[in-house]
Amino acid sequence: MNNFAFVNPVKILFGKGMISEITKEIPLQTNILVIYGGGSIKKNGVYEQVTNALKGYQWFEFSGIEPNPHYETCMRAVEFIKQKNIEYVLAVGGGSVIDATKFIVAASCFDEGDPWRILADPTVVIKKALPFGTILTISATGSEMNTYSVITKNETQEKLSFSSPIVYPKFSVLDPSVTYSLPPVQTSNGVIDAFVHVIEQYLTYPVNGLLQDFMSESILKTLIIEGPKALKDPKNYDVRANLMWASTWALNGWIACGVPQDWSTHMIGHELTAFYEIDHAQTLAIVLPGVMEVLKEEKKDKILRLGREVFSLQADSIDELIKDTISAVESFFHSMNCKTRLSDYNLGEEAINRISERIEKRGWQLGEHQNIKSQEVKKILELRK
Amino acid sequence: MNNFAFVNPVKILFGKGMISEITKEIPLQTNILVIYGGGSIKKNGVYEQVTNALKGYQWFEFSGIEPNPHYETCMRAVEFIKQKNIEYVLAVGGGSVIDATKFIVAASCFDEGDPWRILADPTVVIKKALPFGTILTISATGSEMNTYSVITKNETQEKLSFSSPIVYPKFSVLDPSVTYSLPPVQTSNGVIDAFVHVIEQYLTYPVNGLLQDFMSESILKTLIIEGPKALKDPKNYDVRANLMWASTWALNGWIACGVPQDWSTHMIGHELTAFYEIDHAQTLAIVLPGVMEVLKEEKKDKILRLGREVFSLQADSIDELIKDTISAVESFFHSMNCKTRLSDYNLGEEAINRISERIEKRGWQLGEHQNIKSQEVKKILELRK
Repeated sequence: MNNFAFVNPVKILFGKGMISEITKEIPLQTNILVIYGGGSIKKNGVYEQVTNALKGYQWFEFSGIEPNPHYETCMRAVEFIKQKNIEYVLAVGGGSVIDATKFIVAASCFDEGDPWRILADPTVVIKKALPFGTILTISATGSEMNTYSVITKNETQEKLSFSSPIVYPKFSVLDPSVTYSLPPVQTSNGVIDAFVHVIEQYLTYPVNGLLQDFMSESILKTLIIEGPKALKDPKNYDVRANLMWASTWALNGWIACGVPQDWSTHMIGHELTAFYEIDHAQTLAIVLPGVMEVLKEEKKDKILRLGREVFSLQADSIDELIKDTISAVESFFHSMNCKTRLSDYNLGEEAINRISERIEKRGWQLGEHQNIKSQEVKKILELRK
Repeated sequence: MNNFAFVNPVKILFGKGMISEITKEIPLQTNILVIYGGGSIKKNGVYEQVTNALKGYQWFEFSGIEPNPHYETCMRAVEFIKQKNIEYVLAVGGGSVIDATKFIVAASCFDEGDPWRILADPTVVIKKALPFGTILTISATGSEMNTYSVITKNETQEKLSFSSPIVYPKFSVLDPSVTYSLPPVQTSNGVIDAFVHVIEQYLTYPVNGLLQDFMSESILKTLIIEGPKALKDPKNYDVRANLMWASTWALNGWIACGVPQDWSTHMIGHELTAFYEIDHAQTLAIVLPGVMEVLKEEKKDKILRLGREVFSLQADSIDELIKDTISAVESFFHSMNCKTRLSDYNLGEEAINRISERIEKRGWQLGEHQNIKSQEVKKILELRK
């Protein structure tokens, strides 16, 4: 096991009806901004629960955060915050709203030039941010219990990320029942996103982190068992609760402690979203089987473990077990009604070249061994046509 | 899954050589008290590492915390703290030293009468405590990442506990290599203690907390795989690291979220320690198989799950699988060179009566259904003669 230092101070309020508990977390006489997305919270009862809870507080709202939230939109929120002297932010939504909020609370306190630097300049250290809590409405990104944020600059089609302990939410409300009304594609995307989050922290090379391996497998198995059930029976509380809890755990940092991490599938996937606006999870489902195939020698031990422990596979040879495990992953994506080929989105050679050229230009070296360069990205995507 | 609210803000510094990192966590110009036990830290190099790290700080030391730490000893430390205007405490040791430190930092700030009330009066709410960090030297209790403390009043042979979020350590250093020199009995006790911690939060009745079940099983499997290896190969870093991490996770609160808890084995075990000074873990190994046998109807679903998922057992009938699972648990304790019968400690009817009478007098109703009273305790202990 590798050395590590880690803390995750996010308070979780989990369960049906827990939105009303936020008043215990936000000091009264605080000037609050409620940030949300396209208005689905007005249809599923969440907006009403939030406004009921906030009776007695002074609060404003800022809506219109889009999926793959735009820098430009975030900066309008920053302006609003400064204008209204906002002291506390409440993010109500899925990963996009929470990611946007993390950037907004940091940018609101940023005094070292253009806030785009928070995303684009790796030397920037964020020193201050407004406090914020979240009310999660989609199980997917884990943003409700981590420090990560991914923001897209619309103008230049760049999708970049940042991370800082300063932007841990103070609390996150996880009420599984608010996910009953999600469109099936969002349920599916969420399960796949969480699945690939775990894979990025698990499918590397062994460092004898036995508990981390078992815990990662715990999350993967939960997603595989409960994911398809949520599509068939979307109002099953226990299924929604297990998926919500599993997706939070997929990226709250604990399974990454002491083990190597990959993240190449995400980095390649981000480019597919930036150029072609394919849903984030759908890009992961396209890319991951290719990463597994191209990196199968280096990732062999872990692919075999994934096959045996998570998919209960057995095979006559190691090669066969690797092949079966990659197929099992792709089949799982299909069982979530998710397509896994570039051609399913009418993409081909042109997209492959465009993405690998951009990665070439950036000089990226991805993966746990930093050996996935533009050449390898091309190879990965060629397999996914 | 049940509703819950939970946060665990303890920062973990994990790995070889991490003791030197404590200077990043404790503000300079702080008046520190280092609390430790019987002096084993002077033999295994930990004391030296701590004193090296604390160069430049103003610090004092208080030693002599005993196993099953005494209230009387703790109160001497409280006096010392007041005398020297201590501002920060560093606990260096295992669960006993850390439990003692939690009580000491709370009692030092307690101004509502006799500090014994912190343990004995359930209406007391702790409002303040000195900040403290820990350097763990024994993998066992999980005290390094939770809010629990168990203290024994020597005078009256009472062993009582308290818990408060105020006594979360600010940080805990987990360096597996400092456990290389532990006597085998302490390695064994630690593994069994952690095992039973998980069992108390897992072996109840199902609430469809699928991820919690898988995570609990992850910890149990890690302990079963690595525990006996640590006895054979005590200086194997990976084995020690997995055991240290597993025992922290066994009681850091996360696997208890949203599920029922038992704790009857601990409550009965505490009495065996209070009256007869049997090591804490050894009492658990005596009591648990009895609890499983007497409660086997109510705990059936979870006992079967334990047998299948953790011990990979199969059997022709449910009754047989339950029997085999209870045997497997007892065999695991034996594989850790731990005895499991009252008679192994020359105890019998007299001890059984003494303990069940005390539980009768206290009116305790133990277990996840609060239905284990003195009668059932007697039945449990009769099976363990």
